[in-house]
Amino acid sequence: MELELSQRIGKLKTSPIRKLIPYGEEATRKGKIIHHLNIGQPDIKTPLEFYDAVRNYFEPVLKYANSAGTPELINEIKNYYSRRKMNYSIDDILVTSGGVEGISFALTAICDVGDEILIPEPYYANYNSFFNTLEINVKAVTTYAETGFHLPSMEEFEKKITPRTRAIMLSNPSNPTGTVYRKEEIEMIAQISKKHNLYIISDEVYREFVYGENKAISFGTFKDIEDRVILIDSISKRYSACGSRIGCVISKNKKLIQSIYKLCQARLCLPTLEMIGATALYKIDDSYLEEVRKEYEKRRNVLYNELREIEGVIVRESEGAFYSVVKFPVKDAEKFAIWLLEEFEINGETVMITPVEGFYKTKGAGRDEIRISYAIDELKITQTMAILKEGLKRYLKEESKRY
Amino acid sequence: MELELSQRIGKLKTSPIRKLIPYGEEATRKGKIIHHLNIGQPDIKTPLEFYDAVRNYFEPVLKYANSAGTPELINEIKNYYSRRKMNYSIDDILVTSGGVEGISFALTAICDVGDEILIPEPYYANYNSFFNTLEINVKAVTTYAETGFHLPSMEEFEKKITPRTRAIMLSNPSNPTGTVYRKEEIEMIAQISKKHNLYIISDEVYREFVYGENKAISFGTFKDIEDRVILIDSISKRYSACGSRIGCVISKNKKLIQSIYKLCQARLCLPTLEMIGATALYKIDDSYLEEVRKEYEKRRNVLYNELREIEGVIVRESEGAFYSVVKFPVKDAEKFAIWLLEEFEINGETVMITPVEGFYKTKGAGRDEIRISYAIDELKITQTMAILKEGLKRYLKEESKRY
Repeated sequence: MELELSQRIGKLKTSPIRKLIPYGEEATRKGKIIHHLNIGQPDIKTPLEFYDAVRNYFEPVLKYANSAGTPELINEIKNYYSRRKMNYSIDDILVTSGGVEGISFALTAICDVGDEILIPEPYYANYNSFFNTLEINVKAVTTYAETGFHLPSMEEFEKKITPRTRAIMLSNPSNPTGTVYRKEEIEMIAQISKKHNLYIISDEVYREFVYGENKAISFGTFKDIEDRVILIDSISKRYSACGSRIGCVISKNKKLIQSIYKLCQARLCLPTLEMIGATALYKIDDSYLEEVRKEYEKRRNVLYNELREIEGVIVRESEGAFYSVVKFPVKDAEKFAIWLLEEFEINGETVMITPVEGFYKTKGAGRDEIRISYAIDELKITQTMAILKEGLKRYLKEESKRY
Repeated sequence: MELELSQRIGKLKTSPIRKLIPYGEEATRKGKIIHHLNIGQPDIKTPLEFYDAVRNYFEPVLKYANSAGTPELINEIKNYYSRRKMNYSIDDILVTSGGVEGISFALTAICDVGDEILIPEPYYANYNSFFNTLEINVKAVTTYAETGFHLPSMEEFEKKITPRTRAIMLSNPSNPTGTVYRKEEIEMIAQISKKHNLYIISDEVYREFVYGENKAISFGTFKDIEDRVILIDSISKRYSACGSRIGCVISKNKKLIQSIYKLCQARLCLPTLEMIGATALYKIDDSYLEEVRKEYEKRRNVLYNELREIEGVIVRESEGAFYSVVKFPVKDAEKFAIWLLEEFEINGETVMITPVEGFYKTKGAGRDEIRISYAIDELKITQTMAILKEGLKRYLKEESKRY
């Protein structure tokens, strides 16, 4: 008799970011050098304060920590928010294993099987892992490259609301689009949440990375919806410490936080050393974050200037995070991405990009879109874009022959 | 309109271990000194190898690690098992955040909502967190203090099996009972799993801590059920590194491991530094583990000699882990435990114990049982037991007056 797996685990798909990895590995085996425009791993150095704090820590017995996080770290997170004019008490903050644990906990606490989440698409594809294992249904509101992936009208959201809708979820600045929602958009979401009695799960891990005139307005600044708002945060990108796995979930809704605290207790605690390191990062003067922001802004500008020159491409300047979603003049971006790895090279070099189709819930949407990450430095962006441009030119020539 | 929480989160109960904490805090506020017979936090020092390895690690960018764990750590876990004559390949092992993440992942991968897990009771109460949030039903097979909490007959298990039963789950050596299952018991479980097509989730985190003639037989040593067995392991107790949060889930069932790997990908990765430290721990010569085992064995002997002298107590010598479940001559052990904190003291000192009722699924079972942990040193055990004995004497006197 065969041993079966659960149906919920069967619903888990391979992430669209990881889907291309085997093709990349095969290309590497064949000796090609791959330049990565597909990754969300910043190359910015982790501040030495992290390592110093970890090295200076010693307790003869490395004990279980508090389930909510160490008081010192929670206090520094509180201070970080208070510098941004958001006054949270230490009881409003629970430390989580990166942003993802916060998302998983928030969804568990508010959604039962069959409940629904309203979300603008394209959205961070990894959210699906939690939607699927928790058996939550997604209602996606489509946004478009032509309008810089900004939100459509209130009616478009309301069309998708049912009695089972529990929350509106979004990332701001957005992964994958790099869009920073404007004041009117944030206010519209707040209004919908009140009118339809919904939570707002706001993933704000890229909050510090906004460019030009753009400002990341946190849902944490709205007093009248404070019991509805669940903030998701993380040090991964902010302090370039992805490998430390420290994030937090924040809410003024006491009942919600008490419930999520029970989930924290179930997994006992987070690693002490990582919380020690994270505490040191939060103590760094905010001018550090401004330096990092400026660095990404330069990269964004370089990338945008490269992209706008390509014929047939639809691109708006990325407003935040370190991503841009670009409409390419190809029928199927995944085929193009695979072609780049399998068939194309210049002097033994090629490029890896992320097709965006897997970031949409709506079937067939975004088929001609790619996500480009500018987590790499200016020079590399320029060099890699030159290869990508040449790749596109050849691909279009081959495509025109084929069809 | 009030914002509701999910029904699944509503099912989460406060752990019976943590339930008494407010009473302890209140007693501490009043100036009482509390001796802890209730905790699972060992006082054995974390080997310095852990800290040394962490301090020597440096990468300019602290990147995301592999979702499965670092290859070095997986290889050391493989070596640890191979020294115990269990030959796993690196593909059979996934590193998890302590044992609890492995449990949560295993249950997610094999159980849908409404599926059932068969488990001997009393069992580690924290398992309920995962049963409840995953909406898995528990079918408990009761074991008794009088028979040292050893397993009943095959028929007792088979009575509880339904078409929805997916797995038998147990911890061996057992938390909370300290029971080490004998060869016949392990073989019986293996036989049931084959006959009824079930998985076995075997939590073996206390494997190294067995005393006297007892031997912890791993389900990993049975060739004919290797596709059914899911091992849960952790460094927390083994290397006294609870605050590092490193464990693993192991299985020869490739489809299962591939599915759990997707759950690993969803949470991205575990902290790099903790894996570096854990790798160093697994490299320590096994003679270290034998030293620790001997230390716990001495403590067990001291505790047992203290307990057997108390009139009216039913206790068998703990066989493994660092726990003993003892039947006390009281009507309600929780009331006794609270009384010890609220009303009792000798020279300003009292004792905290864990009532076992919350470790049973069957209502009312184990009401007169307490779990005593011998994770503290010999002298402390003797001193604390003296206080507990005096407490019991006075409590029984008061109880006899009351009823």
